[in-house]
Order: sequence, then structure tokens, then C-alpha cells
Amino acid sequence: MVKESKIPDATIERIALYSRPLERLMEKGEQLVSSERLAELCNVNPAQVRKDLSYFGEFGVRGIGYDVLDLLKEIRKILVSDREWKMGIVGMGNLGMALAENANFAKRGYKFVAAFDADPQKIGKQLPCGLVIQSVEDLKTLSQDLGIEVGVIATQPSQAQGAADMLIEAGIKAIINFSPVQLRRPKGCLLENVDFSVKLDDLAYHLSKVE
Amino acid sequence: MVKESKIPDATIERIALYSRPLERLMEKGEQLVSSERLAELCNVNPAQVRKDLSYFGEFGVRGIGYDVLDLLKEIRKILVSDREWKMGIVGMGNLGMALAENANFAKRGYKFVAAFDADPQKIGKQLPCGLVIQSVEDLKTLSQDLGIEVGVIATQPSQAQGAADMLIEAGIKAIINFSPVQLRRPKGCLLENVDFSVKLDDLAYHLSKVE
Repeated sequence: MVKESKIPDATIERIALYSRPLERLMEKGEQLVSSERLAELCNVNPAQVRKDLSYFGEFGVRGIGYDVLDLLKEIRKILVSDREWKMGIVGMGNLGMALAENANFAKRGYKFVAAFDADPQKIGKQLPCGLVIQSVEDLKTLSQDLGIEVGVIATQPSQAQGAADMLIEAGIKAIINFSPVQLRRPKGCLLENVDFSVKLDDLAYHLSKVE
Repeated sequence: MVKESKIPDATIERIALYSRPLERLMEKGEQLVSSERLAELCNVNPAQVRKDLSYFGEFGVRGIGYDVLDLLKEIRKILVSDREWKMGIVGMGNLGMALAENANFAKRGYKFVAAFDADPQKIGKQLPCGLVIQSVEDLKTLSQDLGIEVGVIATQPSQAQGAADMLIEAGIKAIINFSPVQLRRPKGCLLENVDFSVKLDDLAYHLSKVE
């Protein structure tokens, strides 16, 4: 589905994770971070941090650590998060509204440029971010006009596949699915499923070890 | 913060991930799965799957694969997700409402037993799941009465630390934070942060390789 790349997916996902505490260190004005410190902030082991970062060339100085700003800049370049991505969201119930409000997206260059719903009572309403909810019937035209690159599915489970089909039909090549449903999609369409309960499994595991 | 364990955190998180496609295979009535197939369904490499599962003893049969039911049962035992965890949620805006409705939690034994908010206009309202929104002033008493084990923070960013402090004060030892805020907490309190945008970084990376 994705072109062959030498960097493991798990590394890419961890690289994204590393950038979060780095942003906070930068905001606090810290200039250097050791792999030990970064590892602790991310709940991984230091050898893993060093190994992951080694895929992208030499960032660190042995015994001193990494330059926070340089590392963050490199990570953003690697993740291509140094540009803006245009997103369209389908399903403006509680979840859709919460996602549209989420400050983390815009902060990292993920911008909602359109919001869609099938419910006539919702269509035409303005969101706090300024977007007006559009009819899913206009999804294809608007996606092309606005240059939407990423489709976000936040519908009820029963409508998730329909939403995916519309996004695919509109030529969107990347979908992030927040509904608890396994979606069918053609080869060449990227799909990420977000399942909140995975983090809970992790928490419950550790909690059971403490008790 | 957590008792020393030989199993890396990253492995625990992947083990939780593996259980999701296994559930779907079980629902479809499939009895066996190879490490290659499971790896493909989870976007990791087969060697990683075999290595992760090897921490927990011998599940598979070389050349044949894993028994879907046995593997799922073992994973649930490992993750302690074969029991029910009682959760309380703070912040009943769009995000809180979406989380309370999410089918994945209850399906995996994570049960919301109380919902809290500080807004007098929300307190007393009944959610579709049957819970009635309680005042955060009653958080400590109710947490103890109901035996809440996990606190879920879904407040506005500015109220997240206050919510965490109340949960900690109530004796809750595990918090899952959906707000885009870094929380302070004492040693001995487990914390998981959920940042939706990490998955988007991963998607954007792969999308940029395809283009």
C-alpha cells in the first residue's frame, strides 16, 4: 500500500512521539536533551531513541546530547510536518466537533478546511472555528476545489464505510478513521485507525502491576 | 513510576494493537493466523510480532501460525483486559460526550461509572448511556463510593490540571489525558496522554512518500 521504505513504521510513529516533549522543552527554552532524558519523557528506552534517530543521520553528540531545536526541525522535516496538510472531516456529532476544536491539529499544520454531515439539521451551521458544515453530497466537488488531502472519519459506526467510499471517490488518498469500524479501501489509499482504547490497555496493564 | 518489568512498554502497546485485528478474525470465524498476516494487519514486520509474542511464552506453531482464540485469550490475560475497569470522566463537552459514547471502551471492559463537569448547566443532565452528569465537587466522594480506578480527562486545556489534581486527591492512581496539556502528577500516579495528531504525522509521512 505504501512504497517500500527502509524506515520501519514503528520508528516513524515513535519519531512523531519524540517531537511532543521536544516541543515542550523548546517552549521552556532548554537547548540540549540527552537520549536518556528524551527516552524518559517518552516512556521508551534510551537505546531505542538512539536507534530510531540513527535512521536519519547523525544528530547527537556523544556524552552531550541533542540540540533541541535542531532535532525538532529535523524530525519535522522527516515527518513532512513542516508544511500544511488540508483535511476534510465527515461526521459532525460530538466526536467531529471535538476533533474540529482540537488545538493539537492546527498547531502541527493539520488544518480542517471543510466539515461534512448528512443531517439536514446540521448542514449550514457554523463551527466555533468558523467553518460551516457542508452536505456530504458536496464532498467530491468541495474536496477537489479546496484541495483536501486527508479525510477524517468521525461518523457513527454504521456510516463510516459510506463516508470512506465518498472520500475515496473524491480522490482522497489518506484517511484517518476514528470510528470503531474496519474499513475497506482500495490499494493505494492510506488508512490509519485511531482506537482510544489501545492506550487504556497499556494503562490497565501497568496499573495491574502496581496494585 | 511503574514497578520494574522486563517487558518493554513498546511491546505492551503493540500487544494491545495486535488484539484488534485478532478480534475481527475471531468474529469472522477464522481459526489460525500466521505472524506474517497478523503483522500485515497491524502494519509492523513479522519478526517484530514473533519477538513481541515470545516475551509471553510459546503461542505459535512454526509454519502453521497462531490459534486466533488462544492468542486473543492470552493477550487479554497479559493486558489484564479480561476484567472490568471502572472509569470516571471529567469534562462533558464534545470530547467527553464522544468518549462516553465510544463503543470500543465498553467492548473491552472499560466502563464509565461516573461523568463529571463543573458547569451548573450540564450537571444533572442524563447521557445516552444512562449516566447523569455529576458536579466535580462530588468527585472525591463518588470516586471512592463507586471504586473508580481510572480517571479520564476531557476538559478544556485550561481546566486539565485542576481535573488531574482532583482525581489524584480522590486517590485515583491512573489517568488518561485527552487534553493537549502536559500534566504534573506525583510519583506513583500513572499517566497516559492521548494525542490524536501523532497518527496524522504517521499518515502524512507515508502520504508524502506516495506523492
